[in-house]
Parts: sequence; C-alpha cells; structure tokens
Amino acid sequence: MQLNILDCTLRDGGYYTNWDFSNSLVQNYIRTMADLPIDYIEIGYRNPTQSAYQGEFYYLPNSSLMSLYKIVNGGPKLAIMLDAKNCNPGDVPNLLNDCRDVVKLVRMAVNPAKIEDGIALAKAVKECGFDVALNLMYLSKAGDDYSFLSRFEDLENVVDYLYLVDSYGACYPQQVREAVKFAVDNLPQKIGFHGHDNISLAFANALAAIEAGVDIIDATVLGMGRGAGNLRTELIIAYFAQVFDKPIDLSSLADLLETFQTMKNHYGWGSELPYIVSGLADLPQKDVMEWLGKKRYSTSTVVQTLQGKQQNIFPNQTYPKLSDAAKNLDLQNFKTCVIVGGGSTAAEHSGAISEFVNKQQGLLIHSSLKNAEVYSKAKIPQILCLPGREAEKLKRLAAEDLHNQFKGYVLSSSPRMTSVVPRELSEKTFEVEPITQIRDNSQIALMQQDSPLGIGLSIAQALNIESVYLSGFDGYPGGNEVEQELAMEVQDILEYFTTSNINIRVRSLTPTRYDLQQHSVYALLRN
Amino acid sequence: MQLNILDCTLRDGGYYTNWDFSNSLVQNYIRTMADLPIDYIEIGYRNPTQSAYQGEFYYLPNSSLMSLYKIVNGGPKLAIMLDAKNCNPGDVPNLLNDCRDVVKLVRMAVNPAKIEDGIALAKAVKECGFDVALNLMYLSKAGDDYSFLSRFEDLENVVDYLYLVDSYGACYPQQVREAVKFAVDNLPQKIGFHGHDNISLAFANALAAIEAGVDIIDATVLGMGRGAGNLRTELIIAYFAQVFDKPIDLSSLADLLETFQTMKNHYGWGSELPYIVSGLADLPQKDVMEWLGKKRYSTSTVVQTLQGKQQNIFPNQTYPKLSDAAKNLDLQNFKTCVIVGGGSTAAEHSGAISEFVNKQQGLLIHSSLKNAEVYSKAKIPQILCLPGREAEKLKRLAAEDLHNQFKGYVLSSSPRMTSVVPRELSEKTFEVEPITQIRDNSQIALMQQDSPLGIGLSIAQALNIESVYLSGFDGYPGGNEVEQELAMEVQDILEYFTTSNINIRVRSLTPTRYDLQQHSVYALLRN
Repeated sequence: MQLNILDCTLRDGGYYTNWDFSNSLVQNYIRTMADLPIDYIEIGYRNPTQSAYQGEFYYLPNSSLMSLYKIVNGGPKLAIMLDAKNCNPGDVPNLLNDCRDVVKLVRMAVNPAKIEDGIALAKAVKECGFDVALNLMYLSKAGDDYSFLSRFEDLENVVDYLYLVDSYGACYPQQVREAVKFAVDNLPQKIGFHGHDNISLAFANALAAIEAGVDIIDATVLGMGRGAGNLRTELIIAYFAQVFDKPIDLSSLADLLETFQTMKNHYGWGSELPYIVSGLADLPQKDVMEWLGKKRYSTSTVVQTLQGKQQNIFPNQTYPKLSDAAKNLDLQNFKTCVIVGGGSTAAEHSGAISEFVNKQQGLLIHSSLKNAEVYSKAKIPQILCLPGREAEKLKRLAAEDLHNQFKGYVLSSSPRMTSVVPRELSEKTFEVEPITQIRDNSQIALMQQDSPLGIGLSIAQALNIESVYLSGFDGYPGGNEVEQELAMEVQDILEYFTTSNINIRVRSLTPTRYDLQQHSVYALLRN
Repeated sequence: MQLNILDCTLRDGGYYTNWDFSNSLVQNYIRTMADLPIDYIEIGYRNPTQSAYQGEFYYLPNSSLMSLYKIVNGGPKLAIMLDAKNCNPGDVPNLLNDCRDVVKLVRMAVNPAKIEDGIALAKAVKECGFDVALNLMYLSKAGDDYSFLSRFEDLENVVDYLYLVDSYGACYPQQVREAVKFAVDNLPQKIGFHGHDNISLAFANALAAIEAGVDIIDATVLGMGRGAGNLRTELIIAYFAQVFDKPIDLSSLADLLETFQTMKNHYGWGSELPYIVSGLADLPQKDVMEWLGKKRYSTSTVVQTLQGKQQNIFPNQTYPKLSDAAKNLDLQNFKTCVIVGGGSTAAEHSGAISEFVNKQQGLLIHSSLKNAEVYSKAKIPQILCLPGREAEKLKRLAAEDLHNQFKGYVLSSSPRMTSVVPRELSEKTFEVEPITQIRDNSQIALMQQDSPLGIGLSIAQALNIESVYLSGFDGYPGGNEVEQELAMEVQDILEYFTTSNINIRVRSLTPTRYDLQQHSVYALLRN
C-alpha cells in the first residue's frame, strides 16, 4: 500500500482553539499518531508576527518544535504550513531556517487565482531545503476542466506534493475522482487530497481519490478542523486496518477520541445544518463558523441568512427609518443618550444612571433586553435595540409592558441576521443604517451591524445626538474565545465609530475594560 | 422529481429511547415534517404484547395514532412497521384492523434467509388493505449476485415497495448502485433504500441509490437510529432544496435539530469508532450499541473486543483457574460468602456485614471496586472481581494496599471484555468460567460474563460455596435506560444462576429491589 496519510489535527483544529492546546493533549496526540500508520503530522503554522493573539501552534517557536520532535521519536515526519496570504518569498528564510533539522515538509495553501505567487513562495521554501506541498484551494469551483493543473508539469523540482483541496466541502465523489485522476495521469508530483465534511462526503470523497490513485490524504482526529471539519483519522485508519488486513491496535486512538469528543462538545464542529447548506451551495464556511461560534444567532437564523444570500427567497422585512419617524415619536431633540449593554455594571448602577438620564433630559437606549427589566419602572424615555435573537425573546413578554417601557424598537436595515418581530410590536419598529459598511462581498459586516452596540450607536447617529454615554459594556476578564471575539468586535466598532464621527463624544459611565474614555456617573451627578 | 422520502425518526430512534418520546417533541417533529417535502412518516411499530416494558411508539394504540393523524393534517402519509420476528400472519388482522383509516403503509423488516415467512406476512398485511413495504435486510452480505431478488418479480400485488437495507452500515456506494440498479431494472415494485452511517457513507450511498433510480429513501432527524444511526433528514432535504432549486424553508428543521442534538448528546448515536469498526468488518451494530449504552466499558475496550473477534490479533491474556489455585490461596474451605455490589447498602451496613462474615468464617467477594474501600480495614478474607474497566482503575491504587486487603483478583475466562491487569498484580490474578453460556454466536454473553455479579457467582461456584449472600445489589428506583438495562441483567443472571445451581442458596442481607429472597444481616447476627 503506497497511500500516505497526513494528520493535520493541530493545524486545522487550531481554527477552533486559536492554536492553543494543552501539553497533555498534545503529548497524548503525538504518541498516538506515532503508533499508527501515519506518515506526516502537520503540527501547525509558522507565521510572521500578527497584531492579534494567536497561540503556540500558529507560530511554532523552535523550542516547541524540538519538544514535539522528541516525542515523535523517529515516527511520522513533521510538517508545518505557511499561510500564503501572510507570507512573501522574502520572509521564507527567516521563517524557516531554524527548523530545517526537525521539519521535513512545508505546505502552503494557495488560491488558484494567485497560482504564480504560490509558486514563487514554493521556490523560496524549496531553496531552504524542505520538501514542498502546494495545496490548491477551491476544487469545487474548478468545474470539469483541469487543464490549469498543467502549470505544474515542469515544476517537479519545486513542488513535491500537489494537493487538491475541497475548501468548501462542496465536492462530490465523481468530481474528486476525475480531478485526482487527471492530476495523477498528467503531473510528475505526488498528488494529495484534503477534504471537508460539510455534506458528510469526506470519506466517500477520500475513497474516490484513493480509487483514482491519490498518493496522500489528509485527516484529523474526530474530524476537528475549520467549519464542518475534515476526514476523520479514525475512519481512514480503521479502513486501512480492515481493507489491508493490517493488525493496527486502535485502542489508544479510542482513548484519544474521548478527549477530542469533549472538545467537540464545546466547539461544535461537524456537519451541522448551516455547514450542510453552505457546502451544498458552494459557499465559504468561514463566515458560518464565525456566526455559530458567537452563539448570538440560532442555527435557524444562520440557515435563513445562508438561504437568503443564496436564493433570495426569504427577503428581510423592511421597517420605516428611525430618522424619518423621530419627530412623530418625539425623539428629535435629544442631545444626550446612554446606551446600556449587557454587563452587570448597568444593573448595579441603574438608579444613578436613571437619575443622570433624567437630569440631562436624555434618552436611554437598551442595546439588548439583557438589562432592560431593571429600568422598567424608570420614568425616562427608552428605546430597545433588537440585534440577533432579541426579537424572538420579545414573544415571551407581554406587549403591554413593552409598550409602557419603550418608545420604539430598532433593528438594522436589511439584509440583516435577525428573527421576525412579533406582529403586535411591528408598528413601533424602525430601522437604522448600520455604522459599519459591508466589506468587499464579505458577510462579516452583516454580523457587526447586528451587534448590540452597533445598533445603539446607529441610533445616536440617526437622532443627531452629541454626547453618547455607555454603561454595561464592561468587557471580559480573561474570557473564553467567544467572549474575546465579542470584545474585539466591541472595540472595533468603538474605534470605527469614534474616528468616523469626531463630533460625537463616546464615554463610559461605569467601569469598563474597553479602551474608551471613562467617567463616573456619580461624579457627573454631583455637577 | 419522483424520489420519495420516508422519515422514520420515531421508529428507528426508539431503539435509544425505548420508544417513548415527549409530547412536545412529537408535535414539534410531526409539524416540521409536514412542512417539508417528506412523503411518509413512519411513526413506530405495532407489536404483539411483550413481557418487558416498551413505550408508546412500540405499540401505537389507536388513540396515539389518531392524535398524530390530526397533527399531520393531510400532509405526509403515515407508515408503521411490523417486526417480522414477533409476528405471524395470523396476528396481522388483530394488529392492524383498527388503523386502516389512518395508516397508509405497513413495512416489515425481513431476513433474506426467511424470505418466505416475510412474503406470507406481507400477504396478510395486503389483505388487510394496506400498502406494503418489505425491507430486505443485510445488503452488505449479499455479495454481487442479486438474483435472489427475482423472487419478487411476480409479487407486485403483494409488495408495493421492496427496500434494500444496509443493516450493518457496511455497504459502499458501488454495491448500493449495482443492487438498486438490478432491482429497478428487474422488479415491478417501487424500490427503496435504507442505509446506516457507521462508516459515514449513508449520504454517499443514498446518492448512489438515487443515481441508480431508487424510488424512495429513508432518513431520520440528525440520523437518530439504532447503533450509528441513519441518513440524516436535514442532509437529504437540504440536498433537494439545492439540487432541484426548490424554495424549502429549513428554519423550523434547524430548530428541531437543536432539540435532537440534546438527545444525541445524551444517547450518543453517530459514527463512533466502535461503530466504524463494526461497519468496516460487516458485523452487527446491535451489540456495540448495547455495550456502549451500558457505559461499563471504555470505547477502547469495545474496540479491542471487536478487533479481537474480527482478527484474533489481540488475544486476551489467560490466568490460572481459581479452582486450581484455591488450595494454595487457602480458599478451599468456605461454606459461606457475601458478594458485595456497588449499591449504598453495602457501605451503610459494612460493620454488620464484616461481623457476619467473621462469625460465619466466610469469604467477602467484592464484585467491583465500588465499595471495597469501606472494607479495607476489615480482618476477613476478601477477593476482588475485575469486570469491565476495574483493572484499569487498579493502576491508580497502591499495590501494597491492595495486597493487604485482597487474597486475589478474579476475572472471567477469555474471551472477555476487560482491560489489562497491572503487571505487579497479575501473579495474584485468576480466572473463573462464566456462569452464562455464549448464546448462538451472539456476543451478548460476553457482556454478561463480564458483569460484576456474574463473576462473583462464578467464584462461589468455583469454590463450592453453599450459601451466597448479597449486599449492595440494591436495584434502581425508577432509573434511566442504562440503569434499567443493568437491573434486567442482574435479574437475568440471578434467575439463571439459581435455576442452574439449585443446591446453592442466594439471599440478600440488605434491602434490595430485585426479586430475591431477603434476609436482614441484623437478624442473622442475633442468631
């Protein structure tokens, strides 16, 4: 059997853990891999320094590599990946020179539209003395003409492995079989396949690739990897054991899987409905992963948004603009507002905040329902924002109570990721333009314009308010990945808003961890 | 598009819930199905009365059927299944006559070896006025000669749908394609396919069946079903929506999936490593489901056992027979023993039990480590049984303490499902013959002989003990499914042992829910 297996659990799984893994997990993982018929372990990335925090397996300092190399102890060879987006050929010697004795194979994921950049990078890596794998992305977009692969015919001294990558998990076995066969028949390189499991075809596609003569296949433990995840190592290894009648002891792999199952329950990769829809529609899974990861949207909201983007069959409802309705609602004369976030300080200091709003003749904007109840008796004008799932929650509350507390409900303009407003409240529901622009065809902005703070600030903008105070935007001490992401989003929005609205001042009335001008509501009450 | 979809979530998922589902789940499920392009909902079984408890969807009394029929409200047609193992043609009118207005399709799963019995049953069902589906099991065992299907050529007035069933989840797309094509080309019936997802090929196999012209496909929500589970409804429906560009709103299905995910986290169906191994090896998944369900074995133990059965490459270690070693161990003269189970009564009354053993000059047999600690200071002869994972737990205890407390460690003879005994204890480890025989090639007995009580009783047998007392076999009040199963196992073993060893008396010293002669240790101490 000539087929090689490359396990890239830490590299691809790092998308969920931000490339940090516990020591005990890594040791357990590497030892288990070393006992199985695995040929390469891809342990992570080497990357130039980035501005955000990324963990050990994103940078792989030499000390980390050396300790992993010792555990492998002559078993599988080590591979690492370069992110072609972040690297120029000139960076390569600096990135790779110190790991030549330890790492055998360097891989890079390359967009077929930028194939020449990828080849230039591959040459630089080859010159450093590594075996080179070039992973060509987006196989599902390739159609059935594979002649673009001919570019690699004369590059056998540059590229050792040419991988076909089903980046969107959208390929069917027939296409994989044909593409791999074309590559095997026409190219001097060893041919690889890297699949994803969005529509539960990772194994069927791997079998098709094997049938077509593929030389190397990628897999990860329990399929851990970006979005829906990958071909599962346990499946391809058990298949080997069965088909080639090899006596492979799977029991330590079984133990390792129990550890990974715990992580899977936490992070939730796998072929979930939103990933199925993105795979079937041949859409990127990056955004889906981000939306689901934030736990702000229900699965059904994500599915609706994907379906809407894809088929336009579920258009968002539109509502009157808040700026047009301001006069009728008696909202046109506010100079000051307080935007209330979900943090505990907005509840702890609610008495002082209500008094402050009253004194300033200001407007209280609830960025979500989280702290609204605390202010239900306050005799000050209030508005409620409806980001994410908030509209759904309204169904559980009495319309009368809501009418008594709020002058109106506000959501961002269409397209938005949001659930439907209950009919009895829709007459008092309005839209605001998002403060964030939609970036080049990406749906990330969709998510940001649906942020509680984003809508709150949009209201301030729409009503020409000059002084914006925040409370309950406390930030997170330490914080898990989801919280850190949310915190980054809040900070991004604050920065974007303050630089693009220099005549509006934004300050916090209560303690906050954000980089933001801080006041004390009590000092302001004394004035 | 002529392809029909039958959703059999409640029928196949009932293997996990013992065919009980909450009202709210059922209503939510039926309404969601009714909004999707689902043609049939198979809602459960009709069965003759059995001696054990099975829930609503195993019997489907007419009141249940009527209320479901109202919810469906003219949407998908209702189907039910008969278990051909439990039914004779003569039972059929009695089983089915009252549901003719409500149920459209009656299915039966038939072993190809008993094809004539199945056809006789089908005739009886047809005579009652139903559409009939006959599900032929074990497709993976059929090889590539499908001529046995010709039996159905002249039965178009008896069988409306002929299903090919991949019972073991062991088929590859190629076989499914060929078998379905043969059936479509040669038989007058509509052809169906029912797959399982052991090796993650349920969807790939469904696509192969569709390519070959299949008329109807089975699926279940989140794949819920026996063992590894089935083709997922959400996947085939989303595929429909995409491929046929049908505007299907998936959002209520997305909400339903969240409910089923909670059940999946609890019951744990899916393509786990043990199911992968059983699928690849073409072995039944029924036993794997039972072993995993009991949570007594680690995944790695189940995998080892499957691999052992399959390839004989991991033979169990053998140890000396306890009966041979009895003399050396000074164990040959006991007339009385107390077997200690894991229940709390054995700890609560440990003082009295120790005193009783001492007075009787008896032997204390710990059926597991659970209550052993409580007796660590008791100056009475003690033995420890090592069922399931117990041997693994010993690694965490000091060998010296163990040696001081126990005269020996006992496990059942090979083949057994058990982990390896630590080397420093293996000199004092012995085997006993199981009290349960291995039933016709089934592995169920393997599991029973690994039961704590089973090994304890085997020791009593091996040492010619006349009076066996139990403590800590308390039973479970109410109890979840796993506990109920364990309780049934204990009761089975007790019955088997007492009927086959009439000269040995078995009584409980402390309170128990089992059907077992009860004494009080305090009454016996008074004598």
